[in-house]
Amino acid sequence: MTPTLSLRQVESAEPDTTPDLAEMANAVRMLAVAGVEAAKSGHPGMPMGMADVATVLFSRVMRIDPARPDWPDRDRFVLSAGHGSMLQYALHHLLGYADMPIEELKRFRQLGSKAAGHPEYGHAAGIETTTGPLGQGITTAVGMALAERHLNARFGDALVDHRTYVIAGDGCLMEGISQEAIDLAGHLKLSRLVVLWDDNGISIDGSTTLSTGTDQLARVKASGWAVERVDAYDHEAIEAALNRARASDRPTLIACRSVIGYGAPTKAGTCGVHGAPLGMEEAQATAQALGWDSPPFTVPDDIRDSWRAVGRAGRQAREAWERRLAAHPARADFWRVMATEPGADVVDALAAYRQELAESRPKMATRKASQLVLGVVNAATDLTVGGSADLTHSNLTQTKGMDVMNAGHYAGRYIHYGIREHAMTAVMNGLALHGGVIPYGGTFLVFSDYARGAIRLSALMGVRVIHVLTHDSIGLGEDGPTHQPVEHLAMLRATPNLHVFRPADAVETAECWELALTSPGTPSALCLSRQDLPTLRRDASWNRSATGAYILRETPGPRDATLLATGSEVALAVEAAERLAEEGIATAVVSMPCWELFERQAPANRAIVLGNAPRVGVEAAVRFGWDRWLGDQGAFIGMGGFGASAPAPDLYRHFGITVDAIMAAVRARVAHA
Amino acid sequence: MTPTLSLRQVESAEPDTTPDLAEMANAVRMLAVAGVEAAKSGHPGMPMGMADVATVLFSRVMRIDPARPDWPDRDRFVLSAGHGSMLQYALHHLLGYADMPIEELKRFRQLGSKAAGHPEYGHAAGIETTTGPLGQGITTAVGMALAERHLNARFGDALVDHRTYVIAGDGCLMEGISQEAIDLAGHLKLSRLVVLWDDNGISIDGSTTLSTGTDQLARVKASGWAVERVDAYDHEAIEAALNRARASDRPTLIACRSVIGYGAPTKAGTCGVHGAPLGMEEAQATAQALGWDSPPFTVPDDIRDSWRAVGRAGRQAREAWERRLAAHPARADFWRVMATEPGADVVDALAAYRQELAESRPKMATRKASQLVLGVVNAATDLTVGGSADLTHSNLTQTKGMDVMNAGHYAGRYIHYGIREHAMTAVMNGLALHGGVIPYGGTFLVFSDYARGAIRLSALMGVRVIHVLTHDSIGLGEDGPTHQPVEHLAMLRATPNLHVFRPADAVETAECWELALTSPGTPSALCLSRQDLPTLRRDASWNRSATGAYILRETPGPRDATLLATGSEVALAVEAAERLAEEGIATAVVSMPCWELFERQAPANRAIVLGNAPRVGVEAAVRFGWDRWLGDQGAFIGMGGFGASAPAPDLYRHFGITVDAIMAAVRARVAHA
Repeated sequence: MTPTLSLRQVESAEPDTTPDLAEMANAVRMLAVAGVEAAKSGHPGMPMGMADVATVLFSRVMRIDPARPDWPDRDRFVLSAGHGSMLQYALHHLLGYADMPIEELKRFRQLGSKAAGHPEYGHAAGIETTTGPLGQGITTAVGMALAERHLNARFGDALVDHRTYVIAGDGCLMEGISQEAIDLAGHLKLSRLVVLWDDNGISIDGSTTLSTGTDQLARVKASGWAVERVDAYDHEAIEAALNRARASDRPTLIACRSVIGYGAPTKAGTCGVHGAPLGMEEAQATAQALGWDSPPFTVPDDIRDSWRAVGRAGRQAREAWERRLAAHPARADFWRVMATEPGADVVDALAAYRQELAESRPKMATRKASQLVLGVVNAATDLTVGGSADLTHSNLTQTKGMDVMNAGHYAGRYIHYGIREHAMTAVMNGLALHGGVIPYGGTFLVFSDYARGAIRLSALMGVRVIHVLTHDSIGLGEDGPTHQPVEHLAMLRATPNLHVFRPADAVETAECWELALTSPGTPSALCLSRQDLPTLRRDASWNRSATGAYILRETPGPRDATLLATGSEVALAVEAAERLAEEGIATAVVSMPCWELFERQAPANRAIVLGNAPRVGVEAAVRFGWDRWLGDQGAFIGMGGFGASAPAPDLYRHFGITVDAIMAAVRARVAHA
Repeated sequence: MTPTLSLRQVESAEPDTTPDLAEMANAVRMLAVAGVEAAKSGHPGMPMGMADVATVLFSRVMRIDPARPDWPDRDRFVLSAGHGSMLQYALHHLLGYADMPIEELKRFRQLGSKAAGHPEYGHAAGIETTTGPLGQGITTAVGMALAERHLNARFGDALVDHRTYVIAGDGCLMEGISQEAIDLAGHLKLSRLVVLWDDNGISIDGSTTLSTGTDQLARVKASGWAVERVDAYDHEAIEAALNRARASDRPTLIACRSVIGYGAPTKAGTCGVHGAPLGMEEAQATAQALGWDSPPFTVPDDIRDSWRAVGRAGRQAREAWERRLAAHPARADFWRVMATEPGADVVDALAAYRQELAESRPKMATRKASQLVLGVVNAATDLTVGGSADLTHSNLTQTKGMDVMNAGHYAGRYIHYGIREHAMTAVMNGLALHGGVIPYGGTFLVFSDYARGAIRLSALMGVRVIHVLTHDSIGLGEDGPTHQPVEHLAMLRATPNLHVFRPADAVETAECWELALTSPGTPSALCLSRQDLPTLRRDASWNRSATGAYILRETPGPRDATLLATGSEVALAVEAAERLAEEGIATAVVSMPCWELFERQAPANRAIVLGNAPRVGVEAAVRFGWDRWLGDQGAFIGMGGFGASAPAPDLYRHFGITVDAIMAAVRARVAHA
């Protein structure tokens, strides 16, 4: 059990090291206070508590260049406790990031400000990942630290030699995803990962003793981490611990015994300072207690100079790296890899393979087709890093010659993520954010539930992460309703900036993989069947999935009805259309592998595909979302609720997703029309 | 680090205790083998490995009565490693559960069989919770063990005195939710919770050393658990460990060093035996190796008699309890509580309070209205147990006089779940499944992402769990897109058997709470605003939210347009309609607090509400799902993507969710019509 910390009295918290660092930290602290006061919203407690730790980290240990925030060999910093965003904005301002002038801090949390409520990747320079949902940062950082080791194994210390630092709070460590991250990082011996835990004993509801008694150091030690405990205001001790962490052969957690809202005379050490402004009176009293006599948003020149000097040191490190790169034989290859574009080789190889599939017309599960396609992809590019949440032989995500990446062999390209869907996804976010890697990872579609928090962040950040989600319907059969997704296609499709692919056959699977690989700003979910499916496409000369939906089968003359279907149900629609043709009913079949791409087509083109005839949608999932395409007179054949345990053909019959049911729905509509 | 187990050779695995228990275990083992063989599908490895542990647990320790599977004071058994379902079906069959004759085992995984692919609550007697998604069982069990202590605090040892036993696998312990469960159970000192870990060192991809190096015993000890390590085939040791666990003042994890597929001569100890039938040859070789000479699905009479004797012992315990109950002064109250129906008092109190709100017409956030309503509810019934994932003062889930439930005071009715949305939800499932408690718990709507896995199980099982999801749109303002749900209403609405409520004002909030509390077979999600909203409803004489959607405002004569809106956007729709009326455009406003209930109305009634005039939907969320109501000519005013960080009024303007935009959309449609 963690001993209850007796929170230090502010009065006794004499700076115990050089005044310079203490003043640099107070500059961070008071900018955070001012920003939150001005916004009348935000979280002052964490930046105030951790300002000294962050100051030591940024000024004494980390290697970044504010003038080149994207320098590839920079150290990564992740504010996992993202609500303390003013800490990072204050640091960026003091370090001289061009996009973080004092005006932005004054506009903290206002529309369009670089200083957004939580740190957002792509919104301000130097924000390595979007944080706020707790536990994501620490897990994404595992991905960054792993990418570093992977690229180090390829390019050596001269080009890739950086570290990943995280500031995490009690909330990050309470979220379950943190355990997945800790276990995985320990297993992978990510010695360049350092987590600074803001051990302040306070969460929003009050003392952390309201809900936890875990000895966090014992817990992370159990997963093979090194651990440290320091006073969050003892600069020498913090630096020493960070240096020991740098020398460790394991990831390190440093418990920083801190006081939330450090410096606030009446509110420090209470949950009242977590998520609300101090109020003007307390803010002024804080300044007085800290001996800070500059007005809000004002930093004395000497302190500002000290911070700028830090930036200059980073510049020297960056320039030294650039000299090493310029002299390095692999420099062109390094830049190619860091550009992280699969390139024409992959596209060409996939086009050729697609043609081959259209000719050989295999009957196979789309998960199997995906594996064959991945064999082509992984041979044509060295950027892909695959993996699975312990379902390798079900997701079929590993291809020939793909070594396992582990502590003894970081050059490997296949990751056994363990039974940790959430961490897998956040780690993939980290791999993608680091650059030099295109990650994909597999689980069952139904377990995208477990990964939702991180999938959303993939989409929000716009990173190229490819989710391989097999066993995509009742077609998985006997495992029953706990394993049969029915609402998950809707859940994923509702998420902005996520491409949800459900290919109908091997050819579409190759097309969808190409689209996923060549969408740098959008994550993709490939929803794949467990069961075998016929190859429906004969023409593979162009990537028809790129329009999102297209007419797969048509009869000459006007249509009587249009069948809209995805994935495994397209074959049912085709068979229904063929049998309806024998009855003299002209039925077009539209395959819709990606709604989001179809939505982006010109309305006139969409109208041509959808047609004016009555429509019947077919998908072994719930109707939710389908009305977008069905029109007022449309019908839907699919699931009305959860699935059941039985062999797949029995389930399709039981739930009425059959050729006969499709034909009956069309006949009823044609009779009405 | 866990030392790698040297897996025991099957040959050397001599039974080291009475032949009776070993033979009883072999009966379980061979029924599991036969079931999986017959189904040609399933997971034999776990039942074979853990048959002895389960036999000792059920025959020597647990107290259940197969003739009365719902006896309130029975011990609870949770098969967290749900893929080993044949273990439980075999046990139920041998114990004499009426609904598990040998025919059901022969029909394992076939349509309609009681022996479904994974254990499903409500599908077969004695299945306490649905498992399969890993980590859910162990966490749900925490809820059951907590309900036991809560009711024990109310009714004493004479009536409530049982334990909760879990069999969990490596996968359960790798999933992050397990950490949340372990931390919470340790904090709450749930000494009646015992987890038997099937420590076989194998997961689907192979050795667990592929992905973990965590010392699990050290990890759970760090959260205040007692730990044991036993040989999974040493019956005396297992029983002794279970007895020590019963005497402990803390939850206990017993690591059972087992061999997956124990008994299979060539496949034992490999991942090949995890999820596929042994094959006839290996199945026969297994029988031979175990000295089992009965044909498949056949159990010798003496072994069957031993198992039936276990059932009889349980019956005696149950009858003794019934005698205690009959003599107990609180017996009527006990049955009332275990019936878990809020009753007329709550409904009447809510009707009166609804009327009060309609008269006083407060302007307040629906989260605040929810707190006021909860004050009424919690005073009118003693069944409700509330809580929050560390957002008590944001979710407003605690009401006056609601004590905190903790290890020193299990009678409390408010749970600080910590920053653990997933565990909170699974624990609530366990509280509800146990009976005697109606659980509700709060977090931000956006963090329903983290709880998805358990929310889905609430819906699949059909348990009355009430999710209080505040901060339900961009209306939360400055925290920005990581905290602003846009796709979550769609995600929840897509889930079968889940009522998603988004009340427009205080009156509807009271109505929706009533509907949530009186829906015993359906979980509810109450999506509530952070920002203040006017009271729109004047008439509260009947619960209009019960129809899911209703006409809130109408003008005499034919409608020119219909506005459909939910929650905070209903007020915008009303204002737009009023201003349009001044322009001579007759606009009805339909409030849609619950789509699922509206979907259940007769089509003719739905048609009256929706009307024939052009429709405009308004919701500060994505359009996905809305086309169900909009019709071919409909328009939608809402979010096209993720939100942003700014004060809420700025965001509504920025994203064009305004009265002006609604009016413009109506005018455009009316002009076209």
